[in-house]
Amino acid sequence: MESPLFKLCSSISCTKTFLQPISTVNSPKLHSINKRKKLVCSAPSDSNSVCSGGGVFLSIGTHLIPHPNKVEKGGEDAFFISSYKGGVIAVADGVSGWAERDVNPALFSRELMAHASNLVEDEEVQYDPRTLIKKAHAATSSTGSATAIVAMLERNGTMKIANVGDCGLHVVRKGQIVFSTSPQEHYFDCPYQLSSEAVGQTYLDATVTTVEIMEGDTVVMGSDGLFDNVFAREIISVVGSYNNSADAAKALANLAYDHSQNSKFDSPYSQEARARVS
Amino acid sequence: MESPLFKLCSSISCTKTFLQPISTVNSPKLHSINKRKKLVCSAPSDSNSVCSGGGVFLSIGTHLIPHPNKVEKGGEDAFFISSYKGGVIAVADGVSGWAERDVNPALFSRELMAHASNLVEDEEVQYDPRTLIKKAHAATSSTGSATAIVAMLERNGTMKIANVGDCGLHVVRKGQIVFSTSPQEHYFDCPYQLSSEAVGQTYLDATVTTVEIMEGDTVVMGSDGLFDNVFAREIISVVGSYNNSADAAKALANLAYDHSQNSKFDSPYSQEARARVS
Repeated sequence: MESPLFKLCSSISCTKTFLQPISTVNSPKLHSINKRKKLVCSAPSDSNSVCSGGGVFLSIGTHLIPHPNKVEKGGEDAFFISSYKGGVIAVADGVSGWAERDVNPALFSRELMAHASNLVEDEEVQYDPRTLIKKAHAATSSTGSATAIVAMLERNGTMKIANVGDCGLHVVRKGQIVFSTSPQEHYFDCPYQLSSEAVGQTYLDATVTTVEIMEGDTVVMGSDGLFDNVFAREIISVVGSYNNSADAAKALANLAYDHSQNSKFDSPYSQEARARVS
Repeated sequence: MESPLFKLCSSISCTKTFLQPISTVNSPKLHSINKRKKLVCSAPSDSNSVCSGGGVFLSIGTHLIPHPNKVEKGGEDAFFISSYKGGVIAVADGVSGWAERDVNPALFSRELMAHASNLVEDEEVQYDPRTLIKKAHAATSSTGSATAIVAMLERNGTMKIANVGDCGLHVVRKGQIVFSTSPQEHYFDCPYQLSSEAVGQTYLDATVTTVEIMEGDTVVMGSDGLFDNVFAREIISVVGSYNNSADAAKALANLAYDHSQNSKFDSPYSQEARARVS
C-alpha cells in the first residue's frame, strides 16, 4: 500500500555561476526510481572554482534514493544532464500504474531521457526544450508513460524550460525562490504525461517558460517526489547550507527520503490532499 | 491598526484569445489604492467576439476597490493597460510606509505607471518589460517607492514579464494555473521595491520570465492584495465562472475585499505569516 507520506523522491539540481568550471559537471547517467516515490537532487554553487569561458553555465550535482520497494529495478525515474552550451538538465518520472499491466514503468522514462540526451545537439532541435521533448517522445518504442521536464541554459543566462506534468524546477536567488514551474494535472495525483498511447499528452501540452538566470543562482529540479516531500522553505535552507552541488543534492534527497519515511511529517503532498477535499 | 485580514486588493486580469477584439480592451487609466489593501481585477474570455487580426492579444478587464480608510485619496496602487502589439498590463503598489514621513505613497506608483504607459512604444524600450521599468523608474521625480510588475505580450504568444517585489501574475489554462510569478522580499512583508532613494531596488533586481501563452488562457495580474486574500484555487474557480474579463475582474475584486473584511477568513497571508514564525 502506498501512503502519501511513504515517498522517496528524485530530482536534479544545479547551479549556474561564473565560478563553476564545466569540469565539475557530472557525467550524464540515467537513474530511475519509483513514480512519486523518489530521489532528491540539488545543486548550490561551488565557491572556489574559476570561470573557464565566456558566459554562464550550470554546475550540476545529482542524487538518487530509490523507493525501498523498488530498489532492485532501480525505480521508475530517469534523468540526464549535459554540459552543452550553458547546460541541460532533464527529469522524467515513469507512471507506476503501468506495473498493473505487467509493464515495467521504468522503461518508458529511461528511453525518453536516453533519446533526449542524444538529441541535445540535434540541428532540428535548435536548443529548444519543447522540440527536444517532441523528438525524444517520437523516438520512443517502449510501452508506458512519464512526466517530463527539460531545462536548457544559454550562455547569456536565458534558461528555457518545457514541462509536461508534475516534475518541477525552482530557481533560488539570494535566499528566496524567484521562479517556479507549475505542475499540470488532469485531477489530483493524475499528472499530464507523455505516453506510448494516443490518449496521453504531447509536446503541444508542455508549459513553456523562460527565466533569466543570474550568476550565483541555484536551480533545483526534481520529480514530484522532491516537491511532495520537501517544502520550498526547506529547499531554500538546504541550498544555503552547502557550497557544492553534489552535497546539496544529497542533503535534499536525504531530507525527502526521511520525510517520506516519517508518518508524522505533514508533507506538502498531505497538505495539498487535505486542501483538495476541504 | 492594520490587520492581516483587513485588506483590500488591486489587480488586473486579462484574457488572450483569438476570439477577443482589441476593441474590448479598456482604455488605460491610472487607479490607485492602499499598499497591501487593495482592489482586484481579473479577466477571462469573452466568447462571442471575432478575431480582428493575426496572432493573439489580450482582452482586458480591470476592477479596483480602494481600502476603506483611503478611499478619498484613491489608494496607493496604480496600473496601466495598453493594446500595443499583443497587449501590455502593469501594476505598481505604492509603499504605505511613506505616509509616516508625510509623503503621499500614491504619488510614486502613479508616476511610475504614467511614465511606463507613455514609454510602451519607445524605441529604446524595444518592447522589453525590464527596460520599460528602467526608463519609467529613471523618469520619476516623486518621493516614494513601489513594487511593480509589467507583462508585454507579443502577437506570437510570447509574454515577457518583469517583476520587482510582491505584485504577481497567474496564467490559468484549462482550469489550472500553469504559470505563476514568485514574489521577492527582503523579509516577510517587506518586498523589493523601486524607490526614489538609492537604497531601493532597480530594474536590475527584476525577475525576468517568459511564458508561451495559448489561445483561451486567462492572465490574472494584481498587487499582493489580491494574492494575500484569495487562494489560487479560488482564482481558478472565479475565472472559470465568467465569460468576460470585466465581470471576472469585478468578482475577484469583490472576493478579495470580502475576505479582507472577514476576520474569520484564514487568508493566504495569514497562513504564510503563521508558517514564517513556526
